[in-house]
Order: sequence, then structure tokens, then C-alpha cells
Amino acid sequence: MSEHPPEEGSTDPPTDGPTAPDRLVALRRDLHRHPEPAWREFYTTARIIEELERIGVDELHVGPDALAVDERLNVPDDAELAEWRERALEAGADPELVDRMAGGNTGAVAVRRQGDHETGPTMALRVDIDGLPRAESTADAHLPAREGFRSETGAMHACGHDAHATFGIGVLDRVRASDFEGTLKLLFQPAEEVIGGGKPLARSGHLDDVDYLLAVHVGLDHPTGEVVAGIDGFLAVTQLRAAFSGEGGHAGARPEEGRNAIQALATAVQNLYAIPRHSEGVTRVNAGQVGGGTATNIIPEAAHLEGEVRGETTDLREYMDDRARQVIASAAEMHSCEADLSIKGQAPSAASDEAIVDLVHGFADGVEGVDSVLRRDDLGGSEDATELMRYVQERGGLAAYLCVGTDHPGGHHTATFDVDERSLPIGVELLTGTVLALARERPAAD
Amino acid sequence: MSEHPPEEGSTDPPTDGPTAPDRLVALRRDLHRHPEPAWREFYTTARIIEELERIGVDELHVGPDALAVDERLNVPDDAELAEWRERALEAGADPELVDRMAGGNTGAVAVRRQGDHETGPTMALRVDIDGLPRAESTADAHLPAREGFRSETGAMHACGHDAHATFGIGVLDRVRASDFEGTLKLLFQPAEEVIGGGKPLARSGHLDDVDYLLAVHVGLDHPTGEVVAGIDGFLAVTQLRAAFSGEGGHAGARPEEGRNAIQALATAVQNLYAIPRHSEGVTRVNAGQVGGGTATNIIPEAAHLEGEVRGETTDLREYMDDRARQVIASAAEMHSCEADLSIKGQAPSAASDEAIVDLVHGFADGVEGVDSVLRRDDLGGSEDATELMRYVQERGGLAAYLCVGTDHPGGHHTATFDVDERSLPIGVELLTGTVLALARERPAAD
Amino acid sequence: MSEHPPEEGSTDPPTDGPTAPDRLVALRRDLHRHPEPAWREFYTTARIIEELERIGVDELHVGPDALAVDERLNVPDDAELAEWRERALEAGADPELVDRMAGGNTGAVAVRRQGDHETGPTMALRVDIDGLPRAESTADAHLPAREGFRSETGAMHACGHDAHATFGIGVLDRVRASDFEGTLKLLFQPAEEVIGGGKPLARSGHLDDVDYLLAVHVGLDHPTGEVVAGIDGFLAVTQLRAAFSGEGGHAGARPEEGRNAIQALATAVQNLYAIPRHSEGVTRVNAGQVGGGTATNIIPEAAHLEGEVRGETTDLREYMDDRARQVIASAAEMHSCEADLSIKGQAPSAASDEAIVDLVHGFADGVEGVDSVLRRDDLGGSEDATELMRYVQERGGLAAYLCVGTDHPGGHHTATFDVDERSLPIGVELLTGTVLALARERPAAD
Amino acid sequence: MSEHPPEEGSTDPPTDGPTAPDRLVALRRDLHRHPEPAWREFYTTARIIEELERIGVDELHVGPDALAVDERLNVPDDAELAEWRERALEAGADPELVDRMAGGNTGAVAVRRQGDHETGPTMALRVDIDGLPRAESTADAHLPAREGFRSETGAMHACGHDAHATFGIGVLDRVRASDFEGTLKLLFQPAEEVIGGGKPLARSGHLDDVDYLLAVHVGLDHPTGEVVAGIDGFLAVTQLRAAFSGEGGHAGARPEEGRNAIQALATAVQNLYAIPRHSEGVTRVNAGQVGGGTATNIIPEAAHLEGEVRGETTDLREYMDDRARQVIASAAEMHSCEADLSIKGQAPSAASDEAIVDLVHGFADGVEGVDSVLRRDDLGGSEDATELMRYVQERGGLAAYLCVGTDHPGGHHTATFDVDERSLPIGVELLTGTVLALARERPAAD
Repeated sequence: MSEHPPEEGSTDPPTDGPTAPDRLVALRRDLHRHPEPAWREFYTTARIIEELERIGVDELHVGPDALAVDERLNVPDDAELAEWRERALEAGADPELVDRMAGGNTGAVAVRRQGDHETGPTMALRVDIDGLPRAESTADAHLPAREGFRSETGAMHACGHDAHATFGIGVLDRVRASDFEGTLKLLFQPAEEVIGGGKPLARSGHLDDVDYLLAVHVGLDHPTGEVVAGIDGFLAVTQLRAAFSGEGGHAGARPEEGRNAIQALATAVQNLYAIPRHSEGVTRVNAGQVGGGTATNIIPEAAHLEGEVRGETTDLREYMDDRARQVIASAAEMHSCEADLSIKGQAPSAASDEAIVDLVHGFADGVEGVDSVLRRDDLGGSEDATELMRYVQERGGLAAYLCVGTDHPGGHHTATFDVDERSLPIGVELLTGTVLALARERPAAD
Repeated sequence: MSEHPPEEGSTDPPTDGPTAPDRLVALRRDLHRHPEPAWREFYTTARIIEELERIGVDELHVGPDALAVDERLNVPDDAELAEWRERALEAGADPELVDRMAGGNTGAVAVRRQGDHETGPTMALRVDIDGLPRAESTADAHLPAREGFRSETGAMHACGHDAHATFGIGVLDRVRASDFEGTLKLLFQPAEEVIGGGKPLARSGHLDDVDYLLAVHVGLDHPTGEVVAGIDGFLAVTQLRAAFSGEGGHAGARPEEGRNAIQALATAVQNLYAIPRHSEGVTRVNAGQVGGGTATNIIPEAAHLEGEVRGETTDLREYMDDRARQVIASAAEMHSCEADLSIKGQAPSAASDEAIVDLVHGFADGVEGVDSVLRRDDLGGSEDATELMRYVQERGGLAAYLCVGTDHPGGHHTATFDVDERSLPIGVELLTGTVLALARERPAAD
Repeated sequence: MSEHPPEEGSTDPPTDGPTAPDRLVALRRDLHRHPEPAWREFYTTARIIEELERIGVDELHVGPDALAVDERLNVPDDAELAEWRERALEAGADPELVDRMAGGNTGAVAVRRQGDHETGPTMALRVDIDGLPRAESTADAHLPAREGFRSETGAMHACGHDAHATFGIGVLDRVRASDFEGTLKLLFQPAEEVIGGGKPLARSGHLDDVDYLLAVHVGLDHPTGEVVAGIDGFLAVTQLRAAFSGEGGHAGARPEEGRNAIQALATAVQNLYAIPRHSEGVTRVNAGQVGGGTATNIIPEAAHLEGEVRGETTDLREYMDDRARQVIASAAEMHSCEADLSIKGQAPSAASDEAIVDLVHGFADGVEGVDSVLRRDDLGGSEDATELMRYVQERGGLAAYLCVGTDHPGGHHTATFDVDERSLPIGVELLTGTVLALARERPAAD
Repeated sequence: MSEHPPEEGSTDPPTDGPTAPDRLVALRRDLHRHPEPAWREFYTTARIIEELERIGVDELHVGPDALAVDERLNVPDDAELAEWRERALEAGADPELVDRMAGGNTGAVAVRRQGDHETGPTMALRVDIDGLPRAESTADAHLPAREGFRSETGAMHACGHDAHATFGIGVLDRVRASDFEGTLKLLFQPAEEVIGGGKPLARSGHLDDVDYLLAVHVGLDHPTGEVVAGIDGFLAVTQLRAAFSGEGGHAGARPEEGRNAIQALATAVQNLYAIPRHSEGVTRVNAGQVGGGTATNIIPEAAHLEGEVRGETTDLREYMDDRARQVIASAAEMHSCEADLSIKGQAPSAASDEAIVDLVHGFADGVEGVDSVLRRDDLGGSEDATELMRYVQERGGLAAYLCVGTDHPGGHHTATFDVDERSLPIGVELLTGTVLALARERPAAD
């Protein structure tokens, strides 16, 4: 694959130390250049598999073998998939691999067994790999622009999933070189940003025997050198789509005859943001994407709104959800339109288990490059890693969500977000250390 | 061109009577199957030219020769033009003709001189030829669907411009067979629906010597058999585009950090429709097309609105325009966004000259198929034919805008609009009769 | 009554000419100082009766004898009535007269018979007498302020009804001095501004035998010296009150628990003004008065809106009415509130009869001070004189609504509205002339 | 004072035990019958002073002697004060006392010294005494209605300040009968509900020597028998008034001429509630009271909004305040109106000192009737007790805000709020116990 950065040394893998930072950086930058939104991670998955095969794994499950396919949410239509498939092939993705992901069944699960793995624990590390459908900054102050690895796809890795995928590869490399005895599953999850990939991965069967599940995120406003042992405060989330349908007409000649779907939309947006705050905790609402109408002189007969509501708990999400539905229904009725509401994605809240948090908190300050260890912090956002965490926890396993701080110039999801690459080896070491410590200590749920 | 309906008799044109209704119907249905929105009328123009050449004209001006190219408004981008160009070629349009329309310079002006034309008057008939960017009904009750000439392009002839273009061809055919002495210019105008084609056609030079200008519309809620000698009440119109730009951010983690362009948009829409009515006459407002945002979990940083304001007079349009600008600016400011406002199209009001109205009113009830003749009626909409009417009137010529009634099941611009084809020969006869009567009577402006 | 301006000459009434302008001015200024809103015209009615008795009438009907009491709309509560009753008494109104108006039955009907009145026609002149609930300008440029007859009640004669009442007295005086033979009824109507007095006066029985009904308005943007023979374009109107009820709660501690009536109100107001315009004619909407809530820290549990919709025809009013109800109901539902809707007032449209318009148009330019006579003009507002006009017309009588131009610095209903007192004798002469001409010519309905 | 419930035994006060519950209940019910909103607590203050004098105090400061008068916020106008003054006198308040409160200088500070008070500590107990401007339920299920002590003033004790005042009297009675040595100041604060009384009381001078300040609230969703040692989570608050001024006009005849203040108001309300939530903590917004316009047919030229914003911290309140100002300014500008913004009240946040919380937490479960003791809880609302707490804390003293649970059928500020009278003796004992324990232990600030 000619587009890949030269991989000197790949024939001679390191055996006694971390993956060379150069390799981590090169991989992360390659992924950063090819960001792919949810269910379109054809290039990304193929590129990850290439790395997995270089390192060596015992089992490799791609796409439909890695997911409960029917549980997927927010899958784009065929035309959209075809376009991204084509782009991935042009960027050099292995056509055979891409074929295995037909229908947008992206992502992969790799399994590595080491030593007396039958008596050892089964660990899983989940990293998400999708990009966001937004443009990346072209400013010279933005490192990817300046250094030439800015997005080439129109989408953007504006949330650091390029670093997450890199962590997965780095950890596998390091564990391979360690005395770990047990089973390590690497879960490369697609479609996190649309809250679409967590549930199908949780129900794929691959988590049924997992004793310890780790998930990880970079940044979250923590600087390079700071890590958090256990992230909580995941907001339960529902993503909604409301389609308003009215009736067209000539806006000049018969203004009274139409039923104006954009008026319904505007009324809904205004009142969605105005849903009262709740005394019992954090709530959120966003009308993230809207559209409607056809021409300036036609009364708009259709419009749509894609948005989300969140709550610190499921009850708070339900409160927001109920109010949002009322707002949307009444806004439609006010303008004699119909509103068709559908759920695009949903994720519960979850919490990191104290036993893992304790363990991470105990050793993290010894990791090279770490100068600050927080025990816990709140995400304040949503994450469908909660689907996996809950799945493992409900079956008696333990789960935790770690944060690897990284200086990021722009906020998450903005055009100037970037990952400080010094945090790449820190994350690999922190996660590898956690895997090894868990295998050694084998903490149990309360 | 294989996609065309069989044209028996085209080698033997009629010499002594009206264009055979069969031919009119066939042409109209062919155009109906290939509706093309503004500046994309590649197939339509090519098809019209084919007919013009069959009948025979003295001059033929295509695209850049027919228009003051720099005056065009609302021209789509290259990708959009390329897509429609491709579609036209696939539908059988002559590639050489399509090449002459490169850059979206669609439309044509045909000139026919007869008899002692230098002493005769110069007449012009303007017909518009573009379709609307909306889907057509698939219901069986909708004749084009039932009879198999429903749109194949995704756009729709929902305002009868297929009939208008057919009138132009029919009139040329009939005048050719008449004793008319003078010059007849057929103006096939693109981009009426976006108020984009009138001005470049008016300033093309082809109107500089025109003594009498006629324009025509079918329907307007008049039934088949009814005609109107002079349409007035053209609303002056301004089409606006407002682009709101704010700042993105993670809607869950940092709801306070963004500057929400969709909130600005919704506030603007609500308040645009609420601009107070005016005691001095008709005003209109429509937010015809909106869009914005990228994903449910990103605070929307950009949104746009395409809309229009109208007034019975230019002053009333200015009133609406001023208020609309205030609303848009304040809505942006309220949400700490910027609003960038641009004008997409504009047309003045105009009136049909009494001398022509008198003349038409005098003979119209003798036209076959006409059972009701109204002297005047109001359009209640906008039309950039007013650009041409004013241009001719300001240079001492006369102009009138006639209406040929047609039973139409759905309203103009709706999915079930259709033309009663019995009105095709009526329109051809009415317009031909007007041309001949004007040549005979030569009325002068007051 | 000490507060009245000195009335020299009242013991020696003029017998051969118009009421002295001085007297007209004095009366008008006295009324202007004591404006009383709908159903509170205690002082005004008493003052008018004083003038009537000075001139001499054959019958005098006050309050319940002048009105179909049960048809009254928009009557204020007892406390409000008591307050204005008290104010009238303090201003010097005759207590006995005020007692006859108990319950807000204000207004009066005076009947004068002259000559061989049984063979003569029965004429009626309706003038309205109520003020508006708004403050009057204190600016020195405002004549009533400068000259010391600015409102002393907090309300304001901002629509010239002080002049209308004065016209009534002036006409009676002039007719008394004329050779008129027939019956003249002076209808001093209360509560026009709330569309509340027209219907009870129409159905009082006093109009049953009326052959010719005249109504009049000053100003309407016509300058002093201009008169209009027939006003049309009365907008049909419905006045609505919507009471929103939700549920209170502590806005800080339990923001989620209330059902916010002010949010419902605001949503309703925004969308009421945004009801689409109508192609068939003039429509209007106004949310003229709102209120709600109790304290900053309580979620507002109640709010109300008083507003109106109008239409050029009854159908157009119904269109607005239907849409307004939908908006109000949906706004309430959106915020889980209830909306209770009631009708406060209603008036139809009406037209001035051509026979009277002809007659007025014929002689008006001979009236002293008149320099411009328009045949017809549109009101563009509403007026419950239409109730009386329709009542007379439906029984075979004729009716017309005249306009007496007056220079007015501020617009109608604004703080700086004022009547140019030079128009007082013009109005009296025009109306007297019309009465005499009608008696002479006796035109019949078509 | 004849309206008071019979007070047998008032000549023979208890010397060895708590105030008889009967007396507490009678006092609370009397206050409940006469609720008076902010700065109108004439009857309430007089009634409290009557009790204070019965028990005996060393100093009594009323109104201007109890407050820094110039620091008062939200004081009503003279007419309003006169009305409530009159009502208080009619209800039996001592005229001489009411005179001392002229100008709305309500409230009182009582000082009692016992034993070797110069070596003892100076304690202060602050209780607030004002009612809310809202109607009280008439339902039979509502105890005050059923038992005949429902509000007679139109206002309502819907937040338990009747119980708070009763606590003050009860504690004084109990301390008098105790071996307490030191100075006890009873602060009966007016105008808490409008965030108006805290600052003038804090700066009255009476707090300058206070070592320990206690404040207290009933209910807060804690049941009878539960108490909280330290309430925190006071929201910083700003109360705003926005006055919108536009221009009137006749809504039917000249809809375009006005500048509509109610449209500005509605736009502001919609967008105020839509101010984005903040990731760093709790925010609140409420448009608690609105009004505007005069009549249905006048374009409203004035409207107002009284509302509040809150934040968990001062920074969060500033965030809300900034956004609210932007919304109000832009809403006015959008409708060509002016907005005049003023601050009505403001209070900071504050926290209960750990040393007092510790002490209360230590003994509270021994208080009769207490079956649950919480260490800390959040208020989630605002309280201008924070002005006093901060004042004392900044001068080296300690402060705490306790909660005495009470079963309350309706929520705070609703029409069915009520206090379970079994909580009256619990509150008195808890507060007395805290006073005595503080005097005994004399904890110091860290």
C-alpha cells in the first residue's frame, strides 16, 4: 500500500520495549489523514488489520463476525457507503478486506492468547475508531495542516479516535513482548460518535467471557501528563430524528394554502432548547442538524431535525425525551404538519469499578511521562462504551474507563482539535500496565 | 434522438393551419418528462432548438448569445451543472448544442422575419422554460404518472413552463403559416423560477428594437376556456440568502462554549414570518429552504436560510426587506453568531399596457375553445417577465402579460400540478391572434 | 357643574346658523379632558345629555333604555366600574344621570321630531364616545398639553371620539334651526373601541324604523378640508382572550416541576404574528395585551393574552381565527398547560350605500372649509358601526359612513393624536347637509 | 388585639420547658392567615414584636434601626405600601409599631443577654418572615383552608416563613429558660423572597460582633423528623427587570407603523429559556412575571419582564447574566424597540461551616421527634441568608444553615404548600440545642 508511511523496522519488531513512538506517530497520522465517519471505517479498519497481522494475533474477526449486525443504529444508505468504500480503495485499502466489510460492517475484534492463557484472565480493551462529519482547520497554526497530515476525506478526527486506535495497536505490541498470561481481546469499535456501535459490539458474543474491560479516551481537557484512573459521569443519551411534513404551495400566490414544515421546525428548535433544567442533575439538548424546503418561492413541505437529549441518569434522559417529544408534536400540530419521530441512537450511563480505579491509581504515577494522577473525573458527555461496560458488569466482570490527558489546542469536536503526540506512549504504557496489573492482582467485584 | 416521441409528419410540416395538437401534446409531454431547474435547461433548450430548426428561423441565438451573461443570478456551481449536463446528454440532447450552453448559459432567442419585415413591427414573445426542484406525484390520479410522462429527473414542471415552451413553438408554426409581415422574436427564457433569467435576457440587446412584447402564463387558477387579456399585480420580490456562522463544540461536554447557528436560524425564521403586515398593500415572506449543523452531538456552527420577501410595490418590498435584514441581524447577534446576507434574485413590479389589453379583450372570445374573457386579473406572485416588460416600456414599446386558463388539479408548485392539454391550442391561437392583431392595428403607447 | 367651561349664550341659542365654533371647541375640549374607556363613559354621557337638554329633544333614552343590555361585550368588572363612576362624579357629572347608567350602561339615544315628521323620513346619526386606555403625551408640542385640556383620567381620546360626540351635538343644533321635517335620532354609542357597543345599540329597537343611517369618523389620514363620501373596507374582527394555566413551583429548586404558562404565552405570541398572509385579501393580527406570573422565583402558573384577528371579509377573519386557535391550543399543549379561549368582541364588515355616497359626493365641495372630496376610501380597520349599518340595510334602509378629514400630528391610537379643531364646523356642516339632502331627495335602496 | 387567638397563660409564661406547642401552633397559624410579601410585613413584624415583648428582650430594633435602609432592593411603591399598611391595621396591628415601619422598613432585631454575657459568645439566629404574592388553595384537602387559617390577604405563606418566624419566638422562649450565658440576637428578616432583605440586614451593624450565625429553613423535601446539619448549594442569583419600549399605533389600520414591545418580549422569553446549559454546574433561568400592552387594537408600545438567572457559582451566574442581557438586547433590537434593564436583587452563594455542621450532626439525633439526621444537602435554590453568612464568615465568625424537615403536601411556592406543625417543636429544639452547644463548645474557624 503505497500511501502508507515507510515502516522501517516492521520486519524486526521490538521485543523488549514499547512500540517505537515513531511507529505510533506514523500510524496515528495516517489514520488522521483518512478519517471516516460511523460505519464507513473501511480504510481505518483495513489499516488496523494490517498492523494486527504484522504483530500477530490468534483470532481476527472482521465486520459481521465482530458485531451483532442487527443491533446497529444509524447505518448510512448504500450510496453513502459506496462512496466511502470507493474512497477507501483509492486511499489504498486492501480490496479483499473492504469486501468483508460490505454493508458498512466495519470494525474488528482481535484475540491474542499468551502463556498459560486458560488459567489467566480474559481482558478486553475497547478503542473506538470513527471520525466526525466535519471539516478540519486549514490554519497554519493547526499542526495536521502544517505538517501535511490534515484530513483528505472531508471528515475529521476531531475527537482523538485516531489516537485510540493507535493505543490499541501499541498495547498489543507491548503485551506481546510481556510476560502476560491470559487472553487479550482488542475491540476496535466503529460508530461511537453516532452512539451506534457500542450495542452491536456488546452483543457480539465476544464479551461473554471477559473478566476485565478497559476503555480509554484522550484529552477531555486533561493536559499531557495527567491521567484519570476512572471516568464516570457518562450522560445517558437519546438521539432523535424528527421529520416534519406539511404541504407545499406557491409562497407568493397562495401563502395561506401550504402547511409550513420549516415554521414547525423553527418552533420546535426554539422550544427544545427551552426545556426546563432539572433539579436532580445534568441534562442536555442539542438540535445538531436541520434542513428543509426546496426553493425560496415554495412553501416548505418537508423539514427535518436531528438532535439529542441527555441526562445524568436514565430518568433524567427520560424527562428530556418526554418533553422533547411533546415539543416536537405540538410544533407540528401548531402548523398543521405531521411529525414523524425516530430514535437514531441510545446509550445508558455507567460507572468505573472501584477495584480497577484503585489499581490504576496505585501504579499510574510510575508511568513514564505521567506527572498527575486523578482518581476519578466526570465525562459530562455520552459514550456507548457504557453498553460494553454494563454488559461485562452485569455478568460479574469489572470495567473501567481511563483517560489519558493530552494538550489539545481546540476543544473536542472543533476544527482545531488535535492530539499531543507525546501522549501516545503514555497511553500505551498506562493501558499495558493496567492489563499486566489486572492479570497479576485479579481483583474481584464486590 | 431515440427518447423523443415518434414525430410522424415532421418531414411534412403543416402549411395552412395550426400546429397539430398532437404535436403540441407530444412536445409538452417530452418536456414534462425532462424538467430542468434554473440554468440547467440543457435538454429543454436543445429540444426547443430542434423544433425551431424544423420550422425554420432566420436567426438563432443560444446561451451566451441570448443573454447578458454577467447579469445572471442564482447560477449553480460547476458540479451541479455537470450533473445536469450529463443527464441531458443521456436523455438524448445534442452534444454540440449542449456545449454551446457551457457554464449554464441555457435558453435561446429565435428571430423570424416575414414579408416586408422592415416596415412591419418587431414583436417578441417571451416564454419561460425551467422546472422546479421538487418531486412529482406518483399517484395514479396524476395524469403524467398514469400516462407515463412523469418527470425522470427528480425535478418537476409544477408551474406549466412545459406548456409555455410549447406555446412558443406553436406560435412560430402558426405565424409562419400566416400573412404576418414583420419580425417575430421568440424568447425562450431560462431560470424564471429563481428570478434569475429575466434581467440577463432583458439586457441581451435582443429587446432594444422590440415594439410589442408579450408574455404568457397558463393556469393561475383560471379554468380551461378562460383567458385574461392583461395580468397585473406582479409582486416585487427579493430573494435572500442568510448564512449564519457561529462556533462548534461538544454539545454534551461543553454546551456553553459553542455559538449556536441553528438557534439563530430558528429565531430568525420565527420572526421573519412575524414581520407585521402593511396597510398599503400586499406583502409576502417565505423561508423556503434552510439547513445547518453536522451531527447530533456537535453544537451547530453553521446554518443557512434562503428566503424571499415580496411587496405589491417596490416600496412595500423595501419595507419587508428592511425588516427581514433587521430580524436576521438581531437573531444572529442574540446567539453571538454572524449573519452574512446576500441577494439571490430580484424583480420589480410591472403592468400590462391598456392598448394591448384592449385589443386582446376585443378578439379573444372569438378564439376557438375560449368561453370566458377577463380584462385584467392580478398575479399575486412574482415574475421576472417584469424585467423585460419594463425594459420595453421604458424604450417606448408596449407590453402585456396574458393568461391562458387551464384546469389544474393541484395548485402551482405542488406535486400534483398538471396542465389540461386542451389549453395548448387555445394558448397558441390566442397568442398568434394577438401577434397578428398587433401587426395589423399597431397601437401606440399613450 | 363647575368644571365646565363658561357657556355664555346658552340661554340664547343661535337660531339661524351653525353652532358657534367656540361652543363646539369648548365641548370637545371638555370631553377630551375626561376620556373614559368602554362602558365607563359616565361623565361623557352626562355631559352630552346636558347639551341635549339645552338644545331640546323629544325623547331621551339613557343606558339600559338605549341598549340591548344583554348583548354587551367586554364589560369591565364592578370594581373598575365603581372607580370610573367615582371619578365621573368628582369631575362634576350629575349623580342622578350617573345612577341611571349603573352597571356600565352608558351612552344615550336622543330623538328629535320636526315639522310634519310623520311623513318625513327617519334618520339616525351614530357617533361613538369612548376613549382609549392609554396615556396621553405630555410634550409641549402636543396641543392638549400646551393648552391645558390634556386627559385627567389616565385614559385618552386618541381616536377623535371627542370630536364625534361634538359632531352629534352640533348637528342637532343645526337641524333644530333648519326646515328639516322628519325624525332625527342621535345615537351616542359607548364602547366602540372594544367592539362592544355596536351590537347592543343595533338591537335596541331604536333602529327598527330608521330609513337612513349615517356614521362618521374624523381623520383617518385625511387632512383638514378633505372629506370622504363613503368609507368602506371595514375589517371584520374578532377579539380573543386566551387564558393559559399551568402549574407553579420554585424556579430555582424545582425548575422541572412547573408547567410554565409564560413559555406557552411567548410561543403563542411568536406564532400568532407568523400566521401566513392570505392571497384573497387583507388580514391582521395583534397581541395587544399580555400578562402573567407573580414573582421572579416562581414558575409562572397563569398568563393571559388579549388579541384580535381581522379580515377583509368574514371568511378571511375565520381563516385567521382558526389559525389563531390552533396556535394557542398547540402552544399550551407544548408546555403542558391548558388554554381557555373566549371571544371578547366581534364585528362584521359592511359597505356604504352608493345612493348616499352619490348624494354626499354631489354637494360636499360646497361645504365651507372643504377643498377636497373623495368618493370612497378604505378604512383598513374595524368598526362596530358595521353592526348598525348592516342592521339598517337588512331592513331596507340605507347607510353610509363618512369621513371628515383632520390634520392629526400623531397617528390614531398614539400618544400625540389630536384633532384639528377647524374640522369641527366642517363635520357639523357636512353631516347636517347630508341629513337635509337625504330628507329632500329620499333616495331608495336598489 | 382582637384578632389574635386567645392566649391563655400569656400572663404566666413557662419557665422550665419549651414553648408550649399550642402556642407555637397558634402563632404560626395567625401569621399564616396574614401573609405579607416583601417590605409589606407590617402585621407580621408587629405580631412578632408583641411576642418578643411578652417574653422579654434587652434591645429591640425595628425597621430603620434594624436595616441599612439604603441597601434595600425591590421596595414597592408608596401606593402599594399604603394598601398593605391599611390591611395590617385592619387586621389589628399596633398602629404605633406600624408607624415605625413607615416606608416599608419592616422586620426587627431583638437582642437578649443572659448570665455573664460579656464573656459568653454572641450568637445570631436569622429567620425570614415574608410571604409570597400568590393565591392559596381553597381545596378542602388543604389544611389551612379546612381549619380556617387560610390567607386573608391574597398573598400566601407558601414557603414556610410563618414557621421560621415561629422558630425565632420559640427559641427565644427556650433560651430564656435555659442556662445560656451570652448574647442571642434574633434577626427577623423581611423580603427574602425578593432577595431584597439580606444585604440591608447584613450591613445593619448588628452582625459586626456575631461569633455564630444560624439560619434555618423548613421542608426542602425533607420529611417531618429528618433534619440536615448544613445546607449548601445556594445558587447565586440575579433578579432582572427588562422594560421594552416601542411605539403604539392602530393594529388594524397601520400594522406596519408600530414597534411592537410584546413581540420583543415574546422573542426574549423564548430565547431566555433557551440559554445553553453549562458544563461546570447548575444554572437556572425564569421569566417569572410579564406584562404589556393596553388594548387588543393597539400595537403594544410597552412591555416588561421580571425574571432571574442563577448559577451554582458566581461565575455561572455571570454566564447566565451575560447571555440574558444579550438575548434581551437583541430581542428589542429585532423589533426596533428599546430595552431598559435593571437589577432587582442579587445574592451570592455561601457554604455552611464544617465546625457547626459537625456539632449539629453530633447531637441532633437526640432531639425529640428527630429520626433522621443528614450531614449536608444542597438547597438548589437561592437565599439571601448567604449575604449574612458571608458577612459573618468574612469577619472570622462561623455560620450554618440548618434544615428542619416537614411533610409538605404541595411543593414550595405552590398553592397547596403547607407545614406539618409537628415540625415546629422539632425546629425549636434543634435550634435551641445548637445555640446551647455552640455556647458550650465555642468552636473556632479553621
